[in-house]
Amino acid sequence: MQAYQVQSAAGIDAIGQVELADPQPQAGQVLVRMRAASLNFRDLIVTKGGYARNDRCPVIPLSDGAGEVISIGEGVTRFQPGDRVVNCFFEDWESGEVTEEQFRTARGGGIDGVLAEQVVFSERALLPIPTHLSFEQAATLPCAAVTAWQALVTLGRIQAGDTILTLGTGGVSLFALQLAKLHGATVIITSSSDDKLERARQLGADETINYRSTADWEVAVRRLTDDRGVDNVIELGGLGTLAKSLSCTRLGGRVSLIGVLTGVEGTVNPLPALFNRLTIEGIYVGSRSMFAAMNRAISANSLEPVIDRVFGFAEAVDAYRYLRTANHFGKVVIRIGDH
Amino acid sequence: MQAYQVQSAAGIDAIGQVELADPQPQAGQVLVRMRAASLNFRDLIVTKGGYARNDRCPVIPLSDGAGEVISIGEGVTRFQPGDRVVNCFFEDWESGEVTEEQFRTARGGGIDGVLAEQVVFSERALLPIPTHLSFEQAATLPCAAVTAWQALVTLGRIQAGDTILTLGTGGVSLFALQLAKLHGATVIITSSSDDKLERARQLGADETINYRSTADWEVAVRRLTDDRGVDNVIELGGLGTLAKSLSCTRLGGRVSLIGVLTGVEGTVNPLPALFNRLTIEGIYVGSRSMFAAMNRAISANSLEPVIDRVFGFAEAVDAYRYLRTANHFGKVVIRIGDH
Amino acid sequence: MQAYQVQSAAGIDAIGQVELADPQPQAGQVLVRMRAASLNFRDLIVTKGGYARNDRCPVIPLSDGAGEVISIGEGVTRFQPGDRVVNCFFEDWESGEVTEEQFRTARGGGIDGVLAEQVVFSERALLPIPTHLSFEQAATLPCAAVTAWQALVTLGRIQAGDTILTLGTGGVSLFALQLAKLHGATVIITSSSDDKLERARQLGADETINYRSTADWEVAVRRLTDDRGVDNVIELGGLGTLAKSLSCTRLGGRVSLIGVLTGVEGTVNPLPALFNRLTIEGIYVGSRSMFAAMNRAISANSLEPVIDRVFGFAEAVDAYRYLRTANHFGKVVIRIGDH
Amino acid sequence: MQAYQVQSAAGIDAIGQVELADPQPQAGQVLVRMRAASLNFRDLIVTKGGYARNDRCPVIPLSDGAGEVISIGEGVTRFQPGDRVVNCFFEDWESGEVTEEQFRTARGGGIDGVLAEQVVFSERALLPIPTHLSFEQAATLPCAAVTAWQALVTLGRIQAGDTILTLGTGGVSLFALQLAKLHGATVIITSSSDDKLERARQLGADETINYRSTADWEVAVRRLTDDRGVDNVIELGGLGTLAKSLSCTRLGGRVSLIGVLTGVEGTVNPLPALFNRLTIEGIYVGSRSMFAAMNRAISANSLEPVIDRVFGFAEAVDAYRYLRTANHFGKVVIRIGDH
Repeated sequence: MQAYQVQSAAGIDAIGQVELADPQPQAGQVLVRMRAASLNFRDLIVTKGGYARNDRCPVIPLSDGAGEVISIGEGVTRFQPGDRVVNCFFEDWESGEVTEEQFRTARGGGIDGVLAEQVVFSERALLPIPTHLSFEQAATLPCAAVTAWQALVTLGRIQAGDTILTLGTGGVSLFALQLAKLHGATVIITSSSDDKLERARQLGADETINYRSTADWEVAVRRLTDDRGVDNVIELGGLGTLAKSLSCTRLGGRVSLIGVLTGVEGTVNPLPALFNRLTIEGIYVGSRSMFAAMNRAISANSLEPVIDRVFGFAEAVDAYRYLRTANHFGKVVIRIGDH
Repeated sequence: MQAYQVQSAAGIDAIGQVELADPQPQAGQVLVRMRAASLNFRDLIVTKGGYARNDRCPVIPLSDGAGEVISIGEGVTRFQPGDRVVNCFFEDWESGEVTEEQFRTARGGGIDGVLAEQVVFSERALLPIPTHLSFEQAATLPCAAVTAWQALVTLGRIQAGDTILTLGTGGVSLFALQLAKLHGATVIITSSSDDKLERARQLGADETINYRSTADWEVAVRRLTDDRGVDNVIELGGLGTLAKSLSCTRLGGRVSLIGVLTGVEGTVNPLPALFNRLTIEGIYVGSRSMFAAMNRAISANSLEPVIDRVFGFAEAVDAYRYLRTANHFGKVVIRIGDH
Repeated sequence: MQAYQVQSAAGIDAIGQVELADPQPQAGQVLVRMRAASLNFRDLIVTKGGYARNDRCPVIPLSDGAGEVISIGEGVTRFQPGDRVVNCFFEDWESGEVTEEQFRTARGGGIDGVLAEQVVFSERALLPIPTHLSFEQAATLPCAAVTAWQALVTLGRIQAGDTILTLGTGGVSLFALQLAKLHGATVIITSSSDDKLERARQLGADETINYRSTADWEVAVRRLTDDRGVDNVIELGGLGTLAKSLSCTRLGGRVSLIGVLTGVEGTVNPLPALFNRLTIEGIYVGSRSMFAAMNRAISANSLEPVIDRVFGFAEAVDAYRYLRTANHFGKVVIRIGDH
Repeated sequence: MQAYQVQSAAGIDAIGQVELADPQPQAGQVLVRMRAASLNFRDLIVTKGGYARNDRCPVIPLSDGAGEVISIGEGVTRFQPGDRVVNCFFEDWESGEVTEEQFRTARGGGIDGVLAEQVVFSERALLPIPTHLSFEQAATLPCAAVTAWQALVTLGRIQAGDTILTLGTGGVSLFALQLAKLHGATVIITSSSDDKLERARQLGADETINYRSTADWEVAVRRLTDDRGVDNVIELGGLGTLAKSLSCTRLGGRVSLIGVLTGVEGTVNPLPALFNRLTIEGIYVGSRSMFAAMNRAISANSLEPVIDRVFGFAEAVDAYRYLRTANHFGKVVIRIGDH
């Protein structure tokens, strides 16, 4: 079968296509013919060897995939051939609190990912695809959507009437927008592009801030909330935005620390957290059980993920390049096989 | 000023209009010109002396009112004359876990209620009216809507994708329907009237069951949920429905025990709770802090309470009689004063 | 290898010793030489076919065992030969909320139990034995202690200063007493035997009530708590005690519904739950993750389980008979093999 | 009556004794003859005008007091003359989530404190003194002990078997040690003094680290926990210790951000929080309801606060000087009146 591999920490150019033996499902495993995969900002970091727990090289990249079951190993009860499935980001985090061992089973990093024609998964790492979603749509969910769900729902315990601030219009941010609106929350979103902000409004955003034209966007957030501050910040910027995020969170509110788009170097003075009784909580995707809960929400509300563009399997490296430009609005997907 | 009093435990006929001295606000208190009050099923029980903690007689009835501030006592900082306010069900349950003393401060039972032209409240027992609501609409909230909020949100931690079963189309049930839909949940509702079920659908109900034509409605609920059962039952029937409610709740789910519409006599075998890891939780309205959170949700989503009919102040006893017929769909409201 | 089987629903007499083929560990599995097993009241019910989810017959009985690892299957990483291990009650409930499928994997009921010389377990269903415990002591933990832990800690969120009522001096009750004392709680315990109550005091019980001489023990509990009621009742009696338990629980308190010692027939009026905002929560043992948390507590505090009597493997049926007399104080254990 | 005032932001020298009119209790208020007050590190900062929300000057200092009720205002039901009472840190935070307005009612900062012969409190801001405690002991509780309780119990949900790291041997740290031991936790404590560490051991500390002789104490903490890290850090150092604290917290653990002993200037890289799913939570004392829960724990377990030294009322400024030396182990108390 055909697959891609990250063959060194040399960036996008180190991604190459290879032919590998067809994998076989062992006891408890499921063999899946992949139909689609999606990219996350994290996948660019992986090509540069950027995550401490990701010491595998070569590694098949990408964590997010969808496909159909080809065959099942001994003892598998949850799936059968022909089932449409989406995989979990972590091969081995079913539910409950995560362990260090489970954190090492991230697809497309700690272990091989899904940018391949066939992949074997534990049956514990797969979920049925919500019936109204295509393979391409389902492939957008495992990393970005589950991250947003954990931040907003599992940890953030979102309620109707909450105000959520989400930074930028990347994958996690757009899912945060959509999932927050599902729960009756008010959403403030930022971007450097008025065009993207307009599209965010069409997805339900209540307030938008262009952080290029409004450099002190945290002041704008305070003003939009009558100086109360927001209940939860989906903090995707990292060190470059954290101080501002802390300053526009309400007394007793929460900053969901997710991303490093603005870099991993630098420091911040966390004392606003102390003086305003804030919670800062690190979020790293989520468990199968969170994913399953989210899928119930997606199915019940016929939520449609936002896809920017779909590339063919042969154009996988172009997909990476396109993601790097940051011109997209919505997920970048790679179709696998002809369906 | 004019007011009504329940003058004995003789039922609706024991309600009479009286002239009382105008009340004066003390330190920390607010004098309110009442503009509207709403009725709850509980108010019928109060006329028969039915609540253990309600040993006051005579008592000004009704717990739910809205009006405008006439004047404020010393030290009041949260309100000023002219403010539009709605009162809390409990005069003294601001937040946190309730105490026995706080439970004794229920308006229109433990202490005087709001069916009067002027009422004095602690400033801690009032909230601003959401700007899009009229006095009549605001007056529907203190008991029924807060009860539904506590059951679904505060204790039930509702998430999008949950399935809620709510029994009947009374005040609490319709608010449960509306608030659950705000959170992206799926709602199943029951009634003995196909007409009311049709109106519930228009409010957003996903599934409806006529419990007269479908006597084993709990089986229907199981079927509608692919035999999984529901996440939370808004149990308003009491002893006459509890056994059925327990049997159609999912493993690990919750029965929010609120009502006694079918009576307080009788018993039930609670072992399904044991064998399916259910939680049964008694709910009795809620705190000011829950009410405030709910109002944020109502404002952010421009939720409109459902009002069946508005009576004049002189027709208050007719309003009680109308409530007793159970022909209404939505809240029964009494307008106070001419506005 | 030698094992016992429940061969029909005919009670203790239907338990017989059999010779079975030595089991072999498959991928992900661990073969354990059993050294000890303990009995629970539930095991008496199993011999009478009493649990709905337990439809296996013949079945190797007993859920609670400890032993040492003989060999491991492919891919096992958590254990190696020679490790001292204790098994989980459920073969397949690692963490998070339980599913119906997981509930069907109860050892000694839904699937074969541990009263055998050798048993194969998933590596996900085993835990290391706290180093200060013997095999006999470890074998007392999986059902009774984990049940008490879930009721008190996981769901009950026990805090120092809480008052716990635990009914009787069976296995769960004594663990509840010990675990509650570890957390700085005050413990009230009941028994029909003054002698057992005296021994409970030696284990740390703060207050004791002989429910034979004090038939209205719920009144005594109210008095001991200055009429406040207790925070959490470890309700082991079932239908025969539940009404009393409900009436001596504090406003906003919790009844942990665990047992059926007084039978499964009958009904109760749950309205005290409604009027006092109680939570009634069904508890059925717990997950591996709860067990692991409990073991940390047991290790850190060198907690010693209470063992009443240890029987030899050949005397297994005598152990059942002894349990049935209810004369024991502490767990009844069967030693397996000569160690 | 006699009282002390902080008369400018000039440090300890700006504290002076003054004669003020005897205060009178209004409706809902209680007049208390103060018998003891205790000092916190925060009180040194107040003398330098260091808290943003503390803009009152002159102000009667100190937040923590105990005394006996002299008289009560109209409508007071919870206390009567002669009752022994301790006050809350915040005059107006009874329960639930804190508001900005409530945060402004900190005694000895936002509003007048307790270093006076007579003080008027809202009845909502007082609690009965646990019967086994003296006035001096009770006066140690409002700030330091409640802070430790909120960090460990209310937010930290401590369980037996948890491992707690607490920094230094100041007031909060020693209460954290004692309260954590009440809950069956393992406690690691640091100090620059072997003598203080020895005394901490006598109070129950399981492990001690001299951070002067062991500069990389975070490595020592990791080693003491088999590289797992601790469940909760009682972070009292602030910017000078936070980075180390983050690095020795377990995956999914919690850093309770409380103190600023090492200063408020500086920054930290919070990415370990991100990559290890940590929670950093700002803690600022706590509500009356937390205090009441803690008192139940203190009473049930006869916990004795640690007092280093008691000064007379005339020596109040000496008490400040003594606190500043940081040579104490346990609370510094000022006795008020002759009792």
